[in-house]
Amino acid sequence: MQKFTSFFDVPDYKKLLQKALEIKQNPFDFQMFGKNKTIGLLFLNPSLRTRLSSVKAAYNLGANVWVLNAGADSWQLEMSDGTIMDGNSQEHIKEAIQVMNQYCDILGVRTFPCLTDKQKDYSEEVMNKILQNCTKPYISLESATLHPLQTFADLITIEEHKTKPKPKVVLTWAPHPKALPQAVPNSFAEWFSNINEVDFVITHPIGYELDIKFTQNTPIIYDQNEALQNADFVYAKNWSSYSEYGKILSQDKSWIIDKNKMQHTDNGKFMHCLPVRRNVIVTDEVLDSENSLVIHQANNRTFSAQTIFHEMLK
Amino acid sequence: MQKFTSFFDVPDYKKLLQKALEIKQNPFDFQMFGKNKTIGLLFLNPSLRTRLSSVKAAYNLGANVWVLNAGADSWQLEMSDGTIMDGNSQEHIKEAIQVMNQYCDILGVRTFPCLTDKQKDYSEEVMNKILQNCTKPYISLESATLHPLQTFADLITIEEHKTKPKPKVVLTWAPHPKALPQAVPNSFAEWFSNINEVDFVITHPIGYELDIKFTQNTPIIYDQNEALQNADFVYAKNWSSYSEYGKILSQDKSWIIDKNKMQHTDNGKFMHCLPVRRNVIVTDEVLDSENSLVIHQANNRTFSAQTIFHEMLK
Amino acid sequence: MQKFTSFFDVPDYKKLLQKALEIKQNPFDFQMFGKNKTIGLLFLNPSLRTRLSSVKAAYNLGANVWVLNAGADSWQLEMSDGTIMDGNSQEHIKEAIQVMNQYCDILGVRTFPCLTDKQKDYSEEVMNKILQNCTKPYISLESATLHPLQTFADLITIEEHKTKPKPKVVLTWAPHPKALPQAVPNSFAEWFSNINEVDFVITHPIGYELDIKFTQNTPIIYDQNEALQNADFVYAKNWSSYSEYGKILSQDKSWIIDKNKMQHTDNGKFMHCLPVRRNVIVTDEVLDSENSLVIHQANNRTFSAQTIFHEMLK
Repeated sequence: MQKFTSFFDVPDYKKLLQKALEIKQNPFDFQMFGKNKTIGLLFLNPSLRTRLSSVKAAYNLGANVWVLNAGADSWQLEMSDGTIMDGNSQEHIKEAIQVMNQYCDILGVRTFPCLTDKQKDYSEEVMNKILQNCTKPYISLESATLHPLQTFADLITIEEHKTKPKPKVVLTWAPHPKALPQAVPNSFAEWFSNINEVDFVITHPIGYELDIKFTQNTPIIYDQNEALQNADFVYAKNWSSYSEYGKILSQDKSWIIDKNKMQHTDNGKFMHCLPVRRNVIVTDEVLDSENSLVIHQANNRTFSAQTIFHEMLK
Repeated sequence: MQKFTSFFDVPDYKKLLQKALEIKQNPFDFQMFGKNKTIGLLFLNPSLRTRLSSVKAAYNLGANVWVLNAGADSWQLEMSDGTIMDGNSQEHIKEAIQVMNQYCDILGVRTFPCLTDKQKDYSEEVMNKILQNCTKPYISLESATLHPLQTFADLITIEEHKTKPKPKVVLTWAPHPKALPQAVPNSFAEWFSNINEVDFVITHPIGYELDIKFTQNTPIIYDQNEALQNADFVYAKNWSSYSEYGKILSQDKSWIIDKNKMQHTDNGKFMHCLPVRRNVIVTDEVLDSENSLVIHQANNRTFSAQTIFHEMLK
Repeated sequence: MQKFTSFFDVPDYKKLLQKALEIKQNPFDFQMFGKNKTIGLLFLNPSLRTRLSSVKAAYNLGANVWVLNAGADSWQLEMSDGTIMDGNSQEHIKEAIQVMNQYCDILGVRTFPCLTDKQKDYSEEVMNKILQNCTKPYISLESATLHPLQTFADLITIEEHKTKPKPKVVLTWAPHPKALPQAVPNSFAEWFSNINEVDFVITHPIGYELDIKFTQNTPIIYDQNEALQNADFVYAKNWSSYSEYGKILSQDKSWIIDKNKMQHTDNGKFMHCLPVRRNVIVTDEVLDSENSLVIHQANNRTFSAQTIFHEMLK
């Protein structure tokens, strides 16, 4: 695998999932692939889970790892071609990536959306500039529109906790005080709309439709309670509007996931990518219940990353 | 050992001390315990010595290590239970710790006192929240009230440099321009008031009494010169007041440790945990003298941490 | 090698160059020297290339590495002797270096010029304070006046790309909007004025003469086109004035390296240490051409550092 930026970079998701479960059983059994390899992680915005789980994944593989937090080094990158760089940018993304490339065997980068320019974000302008200059296997640590390492961890988690051959999985919008990216729900929709083993449904207030490129034929049900009927997995997440790009259209508190909502489900499991705002997205009662999988999801981030590193290095 | 937060987490301090001296002799001889282990270090406030010595200790053990500087990632943790998190905090300490736990085999955290709310600080509210959510061995990298890794390094240093079976050890307050925590003197008092092999005395201006929970029956002598009589080890440190919590009650320059003060001692050794303000806490003459142990103490931080990691992983 | 701060710390530059080429061929063949060794890197100002290439070099050698970014920890060092430290500085450089020394087997430090006090910068006051307190092998990660790791990487690059026994190498000033240090051109001049295998020439506007201590007998040609005649390597770099210390005397855009300038050369290769401001120092056309070596130079930073680490640890 030369690139992991979306579901469509994965040749066979079922095989990848089996590999992840195998690696999780024996995380230190693949160190022949990591020996003398270095994984470089560049964060253009802050990270906790992605940073630490990727570092742990590299260690499990016996690989070296470096992390560069671009913000902390006050290091400003020029993204545009042909500019006369006599302003604040000190280095062009072209050189920066070509250089960093040489100091690692896999390059991972977290980019982010501006949420003000839909065209710029949805063309993945920044990530594509990076990819054009990257000669090493590239792993997205979240991009403007997708977060495949998270979704792959979610898939592993669902596989481990499902009790039916074809469980019902509901992605539900939930309220939040700030405008958030669509990367996690887009990515979840992209993967689960392409996977046959689940019955996948999306629910959100009108106006929060995600890009149809990612949701495809997934049923959208505007009544949250109806959507949650008999759900086996409830994946809650806030996102800002795609149609009225980057806007907060609703802060409707009735969309919070609480005990009453969960009663519509078939003893459903609660999922969230974290960090989660307690008693805003979900009540303490649900988050602290036996049915909450959020800590398992975070744990699977390690094996999600380790599996991709493994595929790239083997 | 599942937890190292105070003297009372150590089952047998004499054995631990012997182990540390053994590890110092052959620091790379215990790598079977560190193999494929990862030590996670979370700093809620800045650190130099603790950070680097803990990293070196992990390397000596052949373990992997990650460091997360919470401040630098502008990542705000919610500490209170039951809150509706619609403000600035993005993640609750519950999830943060449960998640980080999974990315390491030992978790070390540096917390700190606010110095304005004695009850909050002395109940170790933050550290206890962390401990409640921590399922891995936990090592305090300094807490609101104690700094056991420092004191254990101090104990090693005294053991190495003592010339009598029962040396006299004096903990003396010294002036400083800013209000400092009581963690180092509390911890020193906690350990040395429970250790029979030393004759332990504390001296400070009136109003600087430490919590009697830590000092117990240790004699407090308000006349510094009297306290220093025949001392073998002089441990200088500033702290803010415990009774008038967090206040600076004195900046009396006559409490500085200089050559004249040291003449009261029995060729006493000078100790300080560093960083130290030269010519405020101690004069250049004393700090740069043969009798200064500060660099030895800092070196022993590595073996202090390595011994605790060893006990937790063996 | 106990110290690498300048050309004059290298006993035999030809042997060192051969070693570097050998290490580049088989970068993982020397791990017996790195085993159980720790390389400490302290940055008193930000870094991308030096940081990552030094980390990669340590990994190639099988050594451990830590990086401390002094700025990010808001940790202020006192540099003056005899001061009463009752102001903002929390720790004296004496203790800081003696302590960090103990947590590593090689210490690397990046210091920087103030550009306002020539005497302070050119006496390498900060680096010398560090050296006085350093008992481990010391590697300059750039100092106030020199950047030997960069120049050694440049030397490797020229050796790899030269097509004549004695190529012509031209160091040319180029315009830049901000006042920059002289460390890179000083260092380049220091090495290449002492190396017989090249025909070395410097060109810059009047007033930009470098310290003659570094340039020695190197011809200075004030007409850039004349200097570039038949050049095999064109090394472009901006620097601020040495005589009118730290001043920008010219922003003459005609000094930019473009296609017309390169036509004076003998199919010359373009070199720059990076980061480079596109279309200010050099045009896109030249930088993106086949003749541009900047990415190769950056790659050789790894082998430059690894060779020095190797010499220090073997």
